[in-house]
Amino acid sequence: MGRPPRAAIVGAGHTRFGALPEGPRRLVRDAVDQAVASVDRGVDRESIQELFLSTLGFSGWQLGNAASIAAEEAGRPGLPAVRVENACASGGFALRLAVDAVASGRQDLVLVVGLEKMTDVPHPRRRYWLGVSGDTEWERLAGLTFAGVYGLMAARYAAEYGPVREALSEVAVKNHAHGVLNPNAHFQKAVTREQVSAGPPVAAPLGLYDCCPVSDGAAALLVARPDVARRFTDSPVYIVGSGAGSDHLAVQERSSLTRIDASRAAAEEAFRGAPFDRKRVDLLEVHDCFTIAELLALEDLGFSPRGGAGKLTLSGATRLGGRLPVNPDGGLKAKGHPIGATGVSQAYEVFLQLRGQAGARQVGDAQRALTHNVGGSGATAAVHLFSGG
Amino acid sequence: MGRPPRAAIVGAGHTRFGALPEGPRRLVRDAVDQAVASVDRGVDRESIQELFLSTLGFSGWQLGNAASIAAEEAGRPGLPAVRVENACASGGFALRLAVDAVASGRQDLVLVVGLEKMTDVPHPRRRYWLGVSGDTEWERLAGLTFAGVYGLMAARYAAEYGPVREALSEVAVKNHAHGVLNPNAHFQKAVTREQVSAGPPVAAPLGLYDCCPVSDGAAALLVARPDVARRFTDSPVYIVGSGAGSDHLAVQERSSLTRIDASRAAAEEAFRGAPFDRKRVDLLEVHDCFTIAELLALEDLGFSPRGGAGKLTLSGATRLGGRLPVNPDGGLKAKGHPIGATGVSQAYEVFLQLRGQAGARQVGDAQRALTHNVGGSGATAAVHLFSGG
Repeated sequence: MGRPPRAAIVGAGHTRFGALPEGPRRLVRDAVDQAVASVDRGVDRESIQELFLSTLGFSGWQLGNAASIAAEEAGRPGLPAVRVENACASGGFALRLAVDAVASGRQDLVLVVGLEKMTDVPHPRRRYWLGVSGDTEWERLAGLTFAGVYGLMAARYAAEYGPVREALSEVAVKNHAHGVLNPNAHFQKAVTREQVSAGPPVAAPLGLYDCCPVSDGAAALLVARPDVARRFTDSPVYIVGSGAGSDHLAVQERSSLTRIDASRAAAEEAFRGAPFDRKRVDLLEVHDCFTIAELLALEDLGFSPRGGAGKLTLSGATRLGGRLPVNPDGGLKAKGHPIGATGVSQAYEVFLQLRGQAGARQVGDAQRALTHNVGGSGATAAVHLFSGG
Repeated sequence: MGRPPRAAIVGAGHTRFGALPEGPRRLVRDAVDQAVASVDRGVDRESIQELFLSTLGFSGWQLGNAASIAAEEAGRPGLPAVRVENACASGGFALRLAVDAVASGRQDLVLVVGLEKMTDVPHPRRRYWLGVSGDTEWERLAGLTFAGVYGLMAARYAAEYGPVREALSEVAVKNHAHGVLNPNAHFQKAVTREQVSAGPPVAAPLGLYDCCPVSDGAAALLVARPDVARRFTDSPVYIVGSGAGSDHLAVQERSSLTRIDASRAAAEEAFRGAPFDRKRVDLLEVHDCFTIAELLALEDLGFSPRGGAGKLTLSGATRLGGRLPVNPDGGLKAKGHPIGATGVSQAYEVFLQLRGQAGARQVGDAQRALTHNVGGSGATAAVHLFSGG
């Protein structure tokens, strides 16, 4: 049976992802308003007891102390509020700590908000910001970008396991196909393997279509203590496992370029004592910031043998309608990747899927799901397990 | 009786605060090594299960994803690690979330690390960084600094309650006198009221001696589940209350300049259900980033009537040897204020005091204490209550 649920999601909201006209305050407000409106039996905003904000502050808009602004825009100035930052994994870690706040009995109902405003920023050093999550001392300032790191990973993967171009392209094709079904996705346009493979080079062997876009967006979750969840809805989505790991920030100090040990450790912790094992998971939301990252994730999380993720992907198993749909919302690749919002957005998708509300992209009778959120190129990772009510 | 303890501090470490030769990695390592060495019955580093890093990333050294570096320097690369940032209150909030991690039963033993490297930074925009925790849109970019905000608070306080210069000076004199007794303090030098009052003006009515310094430093805490604390020591320091609040980030939107509502709310939450009330608190560690802030804290936290904190201070009650010693370690004013380290450093001082290990600055038979940590000029605040074993 495993341990009882630690928390329950009772409401969730999500803005469009993309190059949006809305500023960061408005994005927060829209996501929270939607989350509040989504609660089946309604919720009084005054009953929210704490706020967890996940943001890199990419834009330079408000680099420090931004949590109180999120409380203002949530309509609750004065609410205890804290910012959690682990680069691209900020959202997964904010959820992990929000779960603790209710699981410890301290709070009944808390709000998790993920935000990034990455486009249309007046800051003169915009290109500087994304890199701040890589190793500054020995890698970033020497010119290694995130695309560069993942390019190295893809090249090494091919050297160890054989040609990978077709599988990488299929990841992009699949996630773009899923994005077409998601009205919030940045890209809602299908691509072909030929288009992907012929894309302009970015960091060999990765081309333009192997990279997720730079997006604006926000997402929000209402997280309750399990024993009070049914005050809000008959269909809570329970959080039944949480795991995290880290690794050396500098890629050159890691043991391998073809796996992300932080992800492996996070999955191990999440499944320890969980009420189900990998075989019973119905869908995955994994961190596909680059196409190679989705292949690594399938292996690191234990859903494919080492070197086997390309074959699994090419078999169609990870498509909607396949045996184990991966990133039904389009993933970072097509849905977009507003840094701080991504981990929260993954849980939003699971909330819809496990309640049968995912519309055209619904995964059959989905009951159990996993989310996987990576910080930078694998310095941090968070994994959560969910089950339907 | 109140609720049982939520967590226990079983070890603590602290570097010197000041303009130090050590870089940020070394500061983390030194603080963690000390914390590990301080555990009476010893602790295996491998038994630490998670790390909470509190830092503003002030230096620009590693703005994003720094948590994994702290895990490396703690001798535990791979450890689940997360960064918590609420400006100058980052440390208090990191402690709050670390307490949740053990109080929820998820972990047995976690590490809290507070860090800031503020001097000797090559970044060309050093002066830019501190301001990033103020309201960027309407105040910071218009030129309002933190000294400016607290200057407005002091001026308004004087307008409402009468002359305050002598009391402000006494805060500085007292905290410098305490700093003389703290070998880790940035300033270990006494000052007189005349010196303070005659200091070069910074933001009227505040002068140089009303302002805390810009410091480097780190502090670390080992936080355990209460039921396992005695594996590590016969003298754990229990955390028996945690409270937090926020307020509008922009000072112009707040209801008053002579109180910090976030502090008031944080104290209320902390004392709700606590095993003791204000009358039984033996010492306070409050957030005296400017002298006026200590007066506001005494009132916001409920230890003085409104307008009465100056008189209380001038009576000598808040000095070592007085009825309610405040900032026996010298406070931010004399000990220094390495942003992310401050809230952790306050708990370090309490750990020493409640175990009778504070040496020349020991507060008699201290049994119960309160820490108070403010983010920016009051956008966020965290309060903790502690009792000795």
